[in-house]
Amino acid sequence: MLITAVLASNKVMAYTSPNLVITTADVADMRGAIEQNGQFTEAFVANKLIVNKQIAQVITVPLPKDGGGGYTHERHKKNYKLMYDAGIIYQLTQDEKYANYVRDMLLEYAKLYPTLPLHPKRKMGKQNPGKLFWQSLNEAMWLVYTSQAYDLIIPSLTSAEKSTIEKGLFHPIVKFLSVDSPETFNKVHNHGTWTTAAVGMTGYVLGELDWVEQALYGLDKSGKGGFLRQLDELFSPAGYYNEGPYYQRFALLPFITFAKAIQTNQPERKIFEYRDGIVLKAIDTTIQLSYNNLFFPINDAIKSKGIDTIELVNGVAIAYGFTKDTGLLDIANLQKQILLTGDGLKVANALDNHLATPYKFKSVAFGDGNDGEQGALVIMRQNVGGEQAVLFKPAAQGLGHGHFDKLTWQFYDKGEEIVSDYGAARFLNVEAKFGGRYLPENQTWAKQTVAHNTVVVDEKSHFNANVAVGNANYPKLVFFEKDTNVTISSARINSAYDGVSLTRTIALIKLPEQEQSLVVDVFDVMSKQAHQYDLPVHYKGHLISTSFDLNTHLTSLPVLGKENGYQHLWLKAQAQPKAGLSQITWLNDNGRFYTNSIVMDGDASLIFTQIGANDPLFNLRNENAFINRKTKSKNHTFVSVLEPHGEYNPSKEFTIAAVSSVETLSHQKIDDIDVVEIMLSGDKHYLLAFNATEKNQRNAFSFNGSKYKFDGRFKLFEIKK
Amino acid sequence: MLITAVLASNKVMAYTSPNLVITTADVADMRGAIEQNGQFTEAFVANKLIVNKQIAQVITVPLPKDGGGGYTHERHKKNYKLMYDAGIIYQLTQDEKYANYVRDMLLEYAKLYPTLPLHPKRKMGKQNPGKLFWQSLNEAMWLVYTSQAYDLIIPSLTSAEKSTIEKGLFHPIVKFLSVDSPETFNKVHNHGTWTTAAVGMTGYVLGELDWVEQALYGLDKSGKGGFLRQLDELFSPAGYYNEGPYYQRFALLPFITFAKAIQTNQPERKIFEYRDGIVLKAIDTTIQLSYNNLFFPINDAIKSKGIDTIELVNGVAIAYGFTKDTGLLDIANLQKQILLTGDGLKVANALDNHLATPYKFKSVAFGDGNDGEQGALVIMRQNVGGEQAVLFKPAAQGLGHGHFDKLTWQFYDKGEEIVSDYGAARFLNVEAKFGGRYLPENQTWAKQTVAHNTVVVDEKSHFNANVAVGNANYPKLVFFEKDTNVTISSARINSAYDGVSLTRTIALIKLPEQEQSLVVDVFDVMSKQAHQYDLPVHYKGHLISTSFDLNTHLTSLPVLGKENGYQHLWLKAQAQPKAGLSQITWLNDNGRFYTNSIVMDGDASLIFTQIGANDPLFNLRNENAFINRKTKSKNHTFVSVLEPHGEYNPSKEFTIAAVSSVETLSHQKIDDIDVVEIMLSGDKHYLLAFNATEKNQRNAFSFNGSKYKFDGRFKLFEIKK
Repeated sequence: MLITAVLASNKVMAYTSPNLVITTADVADMRGAIEQNGQFTEAFVANKLIVNKQIAQVITVPLPKDGGGGYTHERHKKNYKLMYDAGIIYQLTQDEKYANYVRDMLLEYAKLYPTLPLHPKRKMGKQNPGKLFWQSLNEAMWLVYTSQAYDLIIPSLTSAEKSTIEKGLFHPIVKFLSVDSPETFNKVHNHGTWTTAAVGMTGYVLGELDWVEQALYGLDKSGKGGFLRQLDELFSPAGYYNEGPYYQRFALLPFITFAKAIQTNQPERKIFEYRDGIVLKAIDTTIQLSYNNLFFPINDAIKSKGIDTIELVNGVAIAYGFTKDTGLLDIANLQKQILLTGDGLKVANALDNHLATPYKFKSVAFGDGNDGEQGALVIMRQNVGGEQAVLFKPAAQGLGHGHFDKLTWQFYDKGEEIVSDYGAARFLNVEAKFGGRYLPENQTWAKQTVAHNTVVVDEKSHFNANVAVGNANYPKLVFFEKDTNVTISSARINSAYDGVSLTRTIALIKLPEQEQSLVVDVFDVMSKQAHQYDLPVHYKGHLISTSFDLNTHLTSLPVLGKENGYQHLWLKAQAQPKAGLSQITWLNDNGRFYTNSIVMDGDASLIFTQIGANDPLFNLRNENAFINRKTKSKNHTFVSVLEPHGEYNPSKEFTIAAVSSVETLSHQKIDDIDVVEIMLSGDKHYLLAFNATEKNQRNAFSFNGSKYKFDGRFKLFEIKK
Repeated sequence: MLITAVLASNKVMAYTSPNLVITTADVADMRGAIEQNGQFTEAFVANKLIVNKQIAQVITVPLPKDGGGGYTHERHKKNYKLMYDAGIIYQLTQDEKYANYVRDMLLEYAKLYPTLPLHPKRKMGKQNPGKLFWQSLNEAMWLVYTSQAYDLIIPSLTSAEKSTIEKGLFHPIVKFLSVDSPETFNKVHNHGTWTTAAVGMTGYVLGELDWVEQALYGLDKSGKGGFLRQLDELFSPAGYYNEGPYYQRFALLPFITFAKAIQTNQPERKIFEYRDGIVLKAIDTTIQLSYNNLFFPINDAIKSKGIDTIELVNGVAIAYGFTKDTGLLDIANLQKQILLTGDGLKVANALDNHLATPYKFKSVAFGDGNDGEQGALVIMRQNVGGEQAVLFKPAAQGLGHGHFDKLTWQFYDKGEEIVSDYGAARFLNVEAKFGGRYLPENQTWAKQTVAHNTVVVDEKSHFNANVAVGNANYPKLVFFEKDTNVTISSARINSAYDGVSLTRTIALIKLPEQEQSLVVDVFDVMSKQAHQYDLPVHYKGHLISTSFDLNTHLTSLPVLGKENGYQHLWLKAQAQPKAGLSQITWLNDNGRFYTNSIVMDGDASLIFTQIGANDPLFNLRNENAFINRKTKSKNHTFVSVLEPHGEYNPSKEFTIAAVSSVETLSHQKIDDIDVVEIMLSGDKHYLLAFNATEKNQRNAFSFNGSKYKFDGRFKLFEIKK
């Protein structure tokens, strides 16, 4: 790598503006395009209107004063976006007024910037401070946009103007972000990515190739820090970013923007081929981590965030520009946003010409960690009367935004959440809700283990809710396999609780020759000491029926527990069903019924809860769960089957199959093999057998007097009479 | 009327089948249409496939045994639908196999029917019994379809077959439904409508014009009963059916079907002009009583029922066939269902030719009762950043399905419910939920006054929840008026509670020259005795903030009351704000904020509730409300303003105007005039003045030293500095 670096840095480049994400060749194409009708022209007309409105107002470059959300903060954010947009409109229209507006604003900044001390609202020790903004992250974002805006208007500037802007603004801000802030600059973290991208892109524009080298390899150019190291470390080999998709799409923008600028300026670096195409993989993985257009809301995630986010609009455009993969156009169609860039034009033209082909969502285990071996995020998909997805999360902690939810799962069907994750407790930018920041309940509820669909031991969270311990430990993916009818995965973690081993196997099944799906869940807990084990299912919908009597609290609701999230749960009802099959049915807004069939031992209880206790300001959503609780137990196996069934259609006035077809459910451990027996109405009889031990071999077992065998990890046997 | 009757009955008709809803001329057009491409052909192909599948199965005409939902009940329902569908496919394809299938089934019925006693599952005293079904209502519905099916296959039958079917089936069933069941037949009620329609239509097909006369004028042909009397009594002059839109669309089908058959056979009766076009008005009113495709859920209503209901598909087709009103095509487009009838073909052709024009939803006060003077159902609409609607309900009780909700209101904005009505407590046809019938909680919660947005006195429901008393009393609509910016209505009822007068005025306002709307609510309660007055607002969304401190129950939730619906409310928090302006803000799923600004007197309290107490089987939805409570009071006026504002867009990561712009709110009664003063941020200052007394005159008042005057009922004054 160092060899390439030296070669590249020695190369003399003839720089013609613009030449970062947008090139002079792009500009020529775009100018041609806006003479024609089409989506690109529509986007241009709309953007131009907005820019015209904004540049009609006086330029405001205020002295930095306010923190996030405050006036000067928001003004400087608006300014960089406006300069970027006006720069593009200048290139497309060749109307000097747009360039002049950007120039005048840059001159203001060039006057102001050298006079600035560190921002008055900086927070010592927590975030690196900026000068225009309270944290240097925003300063770097400002420069990523502003370096592009400058690049776009260079042709309109005199040498004197260039000199003033470069000396007054770009040199000092680059110095501030790089040599004066070595910790952030060299940090292998998304804040570091924004900084290296900002400095590297400015380097290209100003012809300061040394800045580019520093951006790529760290301040000392050793490769221990810098953009390439970030590409090595921050993504798994499959392009998964371990904070989860909500932060993956946020982190994506500086990666793809700088990568595109590198490709434009130094194609010989083959940046899109780096680490087996990690940048393109990261874009694709972000798409894969969505269901019905929304990202899977693991960890700290705002649930309405989805594939139409601007970061992924950029990602899809850049990836399509490079790969011409027409499946990406399917996503672009859903995004309904056309970028005024060369790649944006390629997307718009392709959409105008109806070149989109269906994007293929797949069942994948995304290995976690930079080596892909630190657990995995598992996605299983099939279509049975609608798209279905299981998310299974034997993934790593995911840093400070991670939740204590080892081996949790979620289920999606017919467009909706069925078994759900709370996501983050936050009302983004709503001042009345804790200033729009993460609510205190994000810590006290949303991150805690009981807020997820996984085992809680003794009412404590995984790793005792210690992030550092969580980051240092991760589950092991035992296997992820599939055949025609079954997608199945098994994982284990022994470090979430001292002395307790958690092994979970989840299978998404389409039964042969039927429109019938099942999710089988076998959760094996082992310990030498006796504990209380709770397994919650956070279900979405209206409770329809239970196969056992409920002891419902009618006139007073108590709270379930005291801490670790339990203090937020109202105890609505409890039950102690007798041994055998217990069933809980709910009705989702998608009009389908869901029944969780559970093997009970006569000793465990079922607890029905609603979120909302100890919530003085009504910060939490009042969602429902049931918890399978087994007390004073050493080893225990939770076994259940989730079955989507029937349809409730009050509009057309019919209801079909409102009752589960599961009639018998049992589980046996036969040597190394788990055998789940499922009998459905109509004499349908199945055995799901799997081997989740460390040995992976030829398997054989006897069941009810018959002999069965299978190769590999699992097999679904259909037993005919 | 009697004169017309005699003339018509003397007329000799040459009857050619089919000639009820579908005529021989229709059939010729339809046969031509299916040679072409288009929506009609698509519907034909789809229906034919379904019919083919069904007639491949053996004919089953079981001995009646089961009640509603049971096997024989459902089988006989399927049979009539299948005979009707097969009859149409026969006419369109001229393939005898379809006619033969219908013929063979009719012959089975002709064999069975004469042997039948009253249905074994009949309920004595409650519903009139049938023979095929447990209640005669279903028997009449069966005959409405089956008479049409028979009409469609007559051309394929031999005289002998006709004679067997008519003597064995149609004569006995008509006799059973008419002369043997005089009470139902003569009843001015929707059960009577199904019966008269069934008998009348069979009369046309069999040439038994005496049956038609009886259907139109009652068994004794006096006009005291029968279809025309039903048209006179069951609708208000504007075409409003006083059980509300959910039952209006249900009742609609026999009215429009029989009317169409009358129009076909005896156009000289001008049935569509009868009572100033009441049939067409009833169809149109059903459409008007919807918002975002769903019916306003007043009274017992399943909330997902909307304009795509099959009854209204028929209504729109018949109305379009008669009027050619292209606005109806807009509704047909939303319904996405093409009928295989002559009118269905006209709709399909018009849609294929893009003739649809926007249907106009209006602000209307639908006078209630057959004279239109028994109160009114008031709908106010405007568009301010999305369609908005206020429903204000000073309507009559609406018989047994009516709720005790005099003067309640609902608010809709940007596609969603904002201030909501619970609707019915029912999971239609879901066996596990009380057999799919109305739940016990429909009586204990949904019908009770506290379940609505209107004043509850001393925690009792209106009319003490006595239906007979409710039916005998109704509010008075004081006025309904509008100008450019304001739609306003006022109503009063003195009989809901002994010795208490309730007067409410609601105004939907679009402020001049702004994209800003308000709903002003002034609820005046007067009594000579001291009472407790509760005014609930059932809001949809997440509570964001209150301008006062909340005393929230953190670790134990008590129940609010003991009966009349209060036993179902958890008491989540309470507050006693100081005198002046109190504000409650919530965020709806539509991404908009809503603030209720309330004038408080320092003595009243605000109570925050959630539905769900005393609900052992989780039958109720856990929805939220706040209640403005004034105790020990004789006269009290509740004054509030609801303001939609801002946008929460976590997907695009912005939040704007999350805080209400209402800064001052006050109310004064100046002689006969109510004056509501509203000051918004940015020095916007308004007075809404109205006169809700019985006198309607030239109004003048002084306010803050200035003089104001207005003609008529109201005026919105904008006060400029």
